Amino acid sequence: MRMVDLIEKKRNGKELTKQEIQYLIKGYTNGEIPDYQMSALMMAIYFQGMTDAERAELTMAMVESGDTIDLKAIEGIKVDKHSTGGVGDTTTLVLGPLVASVGVPVAKMSGRGLGHTGGTIDKLEAIPGFHVEIESKQFIELVNKNKLAVVGQSGNLTPADKKLYALRDVTATVDSIPLIASSIMSKKIAAGADAIVLDVKTGAGAFMKDLNDSKDLAKAMVDIGNQVGRRTMAIISDMSQPLGYAIGNALEVKEAIDTLNGKGPKDLEELCLTLGSYMVLLAEKADSLDEARSKLIEVMHNGKAIETLKVFLEAQGGDSTVVDNPDKLPKATYTFELEAQEDGYVAEIIADSVGTAAMLLGAGRATKESTIDLAVGLVLNKKIGDGVTKGESLVTIHSNSEQVESVKQKLYESIVLSSTSVPAPTLIYATID
Amino acid sequence: MRMVDLIEKKRNGKELTKQEIQYLIKGYTNGEIPDYQMSALMMAIYFQGMTDAERAELTMAMVESGDTIDLKAIEGIKVDKHSTGGVGDTTTLVLGPLVASVGVPVAKMSGRGLGHTGGTIDKLEAIPGFHVEIESKQFIELVNKNKLAVVGQSGNLTPADKKLYALRDVTATVDSIPLIASSIMSKKIAAGADAIVLDVKTGAGAFMKDLNDSKDLAKAMVDIGNQVGRRTMAIISDMSQPLGYAIGNALEVKEAIDTLNGKGPKDLEELCLTLGSYMVLLAEKADSLDEARSKLIEVMHNGKAIETLKVFLEAQGGDSTVVDNPDKLPKATYTFELEAQEDGYVAEIIADSVGTAAMLLGAGRATKESTIDLAVGLVLNKKIGDGVTKGESLVTIHSNSEQVESVKQKLYESIVLSSTSVPAPTLIYATID
Repeated sequence: MRMVDLIEKKRNGKELTKQEIQYLIKGYTNGEIPDYQMSALMMAIYFQGMTDAERAELTMAMVESGDTIDLKAIEGIKVDKHSTGGVGDTTTLVLGPLVASVGVPVAKMSGRGLGHTGGTIDKLEAIPGFHVEIESKQFIELVNKNKLAVVGQSGNLTPADKKLYALRDVTATVDSIPLIASSIMSKKIAAGADAIVLDVKTGAGAFMKDLNDSKDLAKAMVDIGNQVGRRTMAIISDMSQPLGYAIGNALEVKEAIDTLNGKGPKDLEELCLTLGSYMVLLAEKADSLDEARSKLIEVMHNGKAIETLKVFLEAQGGDSTVVDNPDKLPKATYTFELEAQEDGYVAEIIADSVGTAAMLLGAGRATKESTIDLAVGLVLNKKIGDGVTKGESLVTIHSNSEQVESVKQKLYESIVLSSTSVPAPTLIYATID
Repeated sequence: MRMVDLIEKKRNGKELTKQEIQYLIKGYTNGEIPDYQMSALMMAIYFQGMTDAERAELTMAMVESGDTIDLKAIEGIKVDKHSTGGVGDTTTLVLGPLVASVGVPVAKMSGRGLGHTGGTIDKLEAIPGFHVEIESKQFIELVNKNKLAVVGQSGNLTPADKKLYALRDVTATVDSIPLIASSIMSKKIAAGADAIVLDVKTGAGAFMKDLNDSKDLAKAMVDIGNQVGRRTMAIISDMSQPLGYAIGNALEVKEAIDTLNGKGPKDLEELCLTLGSYMVLLAEKADSLDEARSKLIEVMHNGKAIETLKVFLEAQGGDSTVVDNPDKLPKATYTFELEAQEDGYVAEIIADSVGTAAMLLGAGRATKESTIDLAVGLVLNKKIGDGVTKGESLVTIHSNSEQVESVKQKLYESIVLSSTSVPAPTLIYATID
């Protein structure tokens, strides 16, 4: 088998076989196939696409390129959730305790990540004492006991995907739906998921700006999951504006606590109930979506979800009293209000741009070496469709610096007012299973 | 400027600017742009093509990537001829003396090359004493004096093209008309051509098997030439079977001598007259194609073309008496006849396959290190459309080995007979200027 022949085959629109895909992923991972051939293949795939079978084979070849996490010792069906990312997305913090409360085992492996705010681990570290440095054995025991534990990423998962992604990033071959789909799915499968719920974001603040592209990506991932024996469902949700109100690490923890108490922002709550219902259904802890949803609403209102959160935090060294006293979370020295400069209706909140404002405050990481300020961030006081009067606060800025002029300027650029009324955007565009 | 942005731009079907093309060719030549980005760009070009302006800019950027040959000291318009290659193509050996005889300066830089037979220099070295190791000053003096000289390739011409070609070869990005066109044109221009005549081969034995592709390639090259101020004309000629009768180095020299004497194979003579007429016209040594052709026929029949050949050979150390006594050329020890196994008409002579048979005899080079046997080769006794009777010779095999079974077998596979009559193929399909 020669790589140049495989490139030509794909270039000519033919389907690569399982053996061919395994050959090229193995060869690329061990360095026998050079970057310059792989990048040409990636560009050919960009133009010619991949068949359903090819995507599934590519996913499994990437899973097999490195370590895989064995969660068999955990009772029940392990359902993982993945979001394609956006601004102010606090769903993971809410969903873990929420679905664990109805018996779904949540064995979360999480990272720190780059972006507008930290990753799930960074956010959880806003809780004094909380840590993720636990042994694999303890991790499994905790999940079996409490139905929820979070551990830092370990092992060499999907090295082929890591190497490929770095190459695609510098060769303009990121924007290929089969490549994005197999990259995401390979990571979830290598991390031990039996079933997967996907939240594909769409709109100005999402990686996929176009609704049809988002649907295609969701379909591709659901197809892959089902082909390789992992039940998978997806929703397409709105990222035309940030989700919820809070953007920032401690601020999002507080918002997650509010949501688990049934007092969170309506959009965040609705999204968590929808994703959570799928997770409960796939974990076979309910017979229908309606039943799953009722159970989740119940634990949100009878205190069980909050109790699960406390038990989880304590088990990993965290001070669970912050749940009832969120004032114990890291707190910024200053707050400033972004005042509306005119009357009107909020027409646009450019999520990317709001995220950049949060980064300017220090809430996110620009490089792996950056440190995060867990206290700082933004709280939106208005969302799309809301009416505002001149002087009213659009955003509360939580800052550890007195100098927030550039943050304010960025925010004014991000929030567009209209003189006529504007409808609130749809939250969930489609579900795919 | 970032290479990844240029890849994305081309991937999205946008036109690259002159500055962008210069940046990427310069960066690639000096190693600042890595192979893996260039191969992704090449694949994007494969799918998106290039505009007329892009092709011309790419050609000139490659010309400027290395040395260029300055032929200004040679009087007159220097016209170069290029063939896209085939089997048994003796045109260069004929055309040099032919057009030089009517005053066209021919300053030929040539190579040894890989393939079924040697390059022009290998063929000329079949003439005892002939050599191409001449200084640049002497080369120019010889062209001014005799209108014809041949020199080996020197200098670092079009390094960008060499590096790109090697990359394209292993990334399935060779088959792109704009890339092929700019590669060929950059080499001709760097070698000092003021005007260029192109012979684009089409058919089973050619690089371009399809007539429309051949036309597209010819048009692309003519457009490039005319855009960068080098008058360029092209013809599309048949390579459904080998050109002329001889395939092999000394055998082709003899055939060239015959053709210059007006006694060559009709197809080879016709092709040389056609290409030669264009050369004479572009060199402004005639006012019309008809006048050019008449002049060429005249020198073919009045002995002037043969005289030019002799003078040229002597000036570069060759024994010009071989021209009148071709028996002095290297001669194989054995000849064998390939006898027809049935009556019929020649329907196909698969040129590639005949070329492989010549290589088996030792007429060509498989790698740069191979040595060539100048004496061996094949002489076709029948061409497409000819009737044959069982036992009649289809091919004479000139061999230095008594073992020619595998050669015969290859040839039997190459020559397809039909029981019904077959028309001779068209020689020249189109002219493009």
